[in-house]
Amino acid sequence: MKIAFTTILPEEGFQRLQGHTLYAPLEEAEVLVSTFDYRVTREMINSAPYLRLITNFGVGFNNIDLDACRERGIRVTNTPQPVIEPTAELAFALMHDVARRTAEFDRKLRLGTAEAFGVMNNLSHSLYGKTLGIIGMGRIGQALARRAVASGMRIIYHNRKPLGDEIIGQLGYEVRYVSKEELLQTADFVSLNLPYTPEVKHLIGEKELKMMKPTAYLINTARGAHVDEQALVEALQKGEIAGAAMDVYEHEPQIHPELLTLDNVVLSPHTGTGTWEGRIAMCENVCDNILAWKQQDINKMNIVL
Amino acid sequence: MKIAFTTILPEEGFQRLQGHTLYAPLEEAEVLVSTFDYRVTREMINSAPYLRLITNFGVGFNNIDLDACRERGIRVTNTPQPVIEPTAELAFALMHDVARRTAEFDRKLRLGTAEAFGVMNNLSHSLYGKTLGIIGMGRIGQALARRAVASGMRIIYHNRKPLGDEIIGQLGYEVRYVSKEELLQTADFVSLNLPYTPEVKHLIGEKELKMMKPTAYLINTARGAHVDEQALVEALQKGEIAGAAMDVYEHEPQIHPELLTLDNVVLSPHTGTGTWEGRIAMCENVCDNILAWKQQDINKMNIVL
Repeated sequence: MKIAFTTILPEEGFQRLQGHTLYAPLEEAEVLVSTFDYRVTREMINSAPYLRLITNFGVGFNNIDLDACRERGIRVTNTPQPVIEPTAELAFALMHDVARRTAEFDRKLRLGTAEAFGVMNNLSHSLYGKTLGIIGMGRIGQALARRAVASGMRIIYHNRKPLGDEIIGQLGYEVRYVSKEELLQTADFVSLNLPYTPEVKHLIGEKELKMMKPTAYLINTARGAHVDEQALVEALQKGEIAGAAMDVYEHEPQIHPELLTLDNVVLSPHTGTGTWEGRIAMCENVCDNILAWKQQDINKMNIVL
Repeated sequence: MKIAFTTILPEEGFQRLQGHTLYAPLEEAEVLVSTFDYRVTREMINSAPYLRLITNFGVGFNNIDLDACRERGIRVTNTPQPVIEPTAELAFALMHDVARRTAEFDRKLRLGTAEAFGVMNNLSHSLYGKTLGIIGMGRIGQALARRAVASGMRIIYHNRKPLGDEIIGQLGYEVRYVSKEELLQTADFVSLNLPYTPEVKHLIGEKELKMMKPTAYLINTARGAHVDEQALVEALQKGEIAGAAMDVYEHEPQIHPELLTLDNVVLSPHTGTGTWEGRIAMCENVCDNILAWKQQDINKMNIVL
């Protein structure tokens, strides 16, 4: 097989493809390994006459022109499994960072602008005993909830529909399904863990931010367009919510300049899945998809299209 | 009762002491509410002829001259329960911060020195699947372990002696007792969660840092004197360990100036118990101790001496 790549990926993740041509020119390739941050346009697809499979690196696939793939009968796969734990882990890290103010303290100690040490100085807020509201209770949301329960939090969630009894039974912890409005009005932490589709653009805007408690934190590790970033900046500046932590941005890689100035914000450069361990596992998952496709074993593929 | 304080503490935590004199002069006080960051010396104790009880705010009590208390027959209490969850929570936050590089990313995005967004940029390391070694498996260590297990970590621990079967049975997760050497040689994260006594000064020095894996992280939320800070700086600079996160310092409130310059370090201003929720709960625990002492109900007191 001739396999093209949009991005150079770690060699150790592709050892099972030895004997095939990696980093082939797109115009000769049967397979394209694309990454979630690289737009695969209709023009690219049409410049690749032999292309039959796109194996996207990442769980999201809004970087790919699926209509163009459909017209050409090109199969598309993703890597849903290895992204779950790293992304839930980062969401959980950001919850701690913003409530316990750890990034702010580290920065201010280095800059020399920190408050003095003292029993009543540098106070923050606990996660323990609080309510986490998860919007998008898929596998990442569930992995986040598992961590939060062990940290003494209660879980409420909102999805298009409640989780089935079978999934609930496997969770091993209690969760409660609520409306989006109830979630926003009662959660101490609101975490976005749903995939992006145009219908959920600005899922969190001015109206939703006003529903949240003034003591609540917003965490976004999903997709930037879920949040109206200008409305978020205004809510943070007015104290309508207590803080926000985000790994993704509406106009990525640009970050709203006001966010960079606010102390009640924690910013991360779209690195939810960005651990070495996670990257290698995602490469392995791409190999799984390519080899299963080669063997026509569609049951072993993570099929998007 | 006339009650003196070393530090002004939140009023809402002392409502059960209405009718008593709070913030009395020490020379008139029967009770002293001291805080863990304030040294209660022999001179102070001897200047307080009516003093019969010191209720320390915090779990540690190395700020108090216990010999002087013993000679005078002064009782000493602490607040072990409300510090457990906030401190374990901060240790867990710092583990994420240093391995997932969240404080570093936030700082560099604000300074404009961050690497560009990109699939193979800004990579970090997962906690998931790693081994956490806890030195000091008391209540805080156990609360940290509970969180780590739910985050996909294995737990090894070292104590003066292994936990009893009854405690092990109540944990609800698996832990393995190992020697200090095995812990240092095999853990991916080493967390210090033991109280300070002079015998454990520099528990982590040059020799111990060399035993650790070059990929391992050291987390200290216990007491600064546990770690030889100069040796730590050298180990970090030479890459003998991957990183360190600390809430406490050998010469507190001074921080070794080299630590402030290292990217593989996360620094926090001794705020393990420093949440508003934690502070109020600690005040309540001080009230419990004072009121139980007043009623001569020693079973309801957290007695240190």
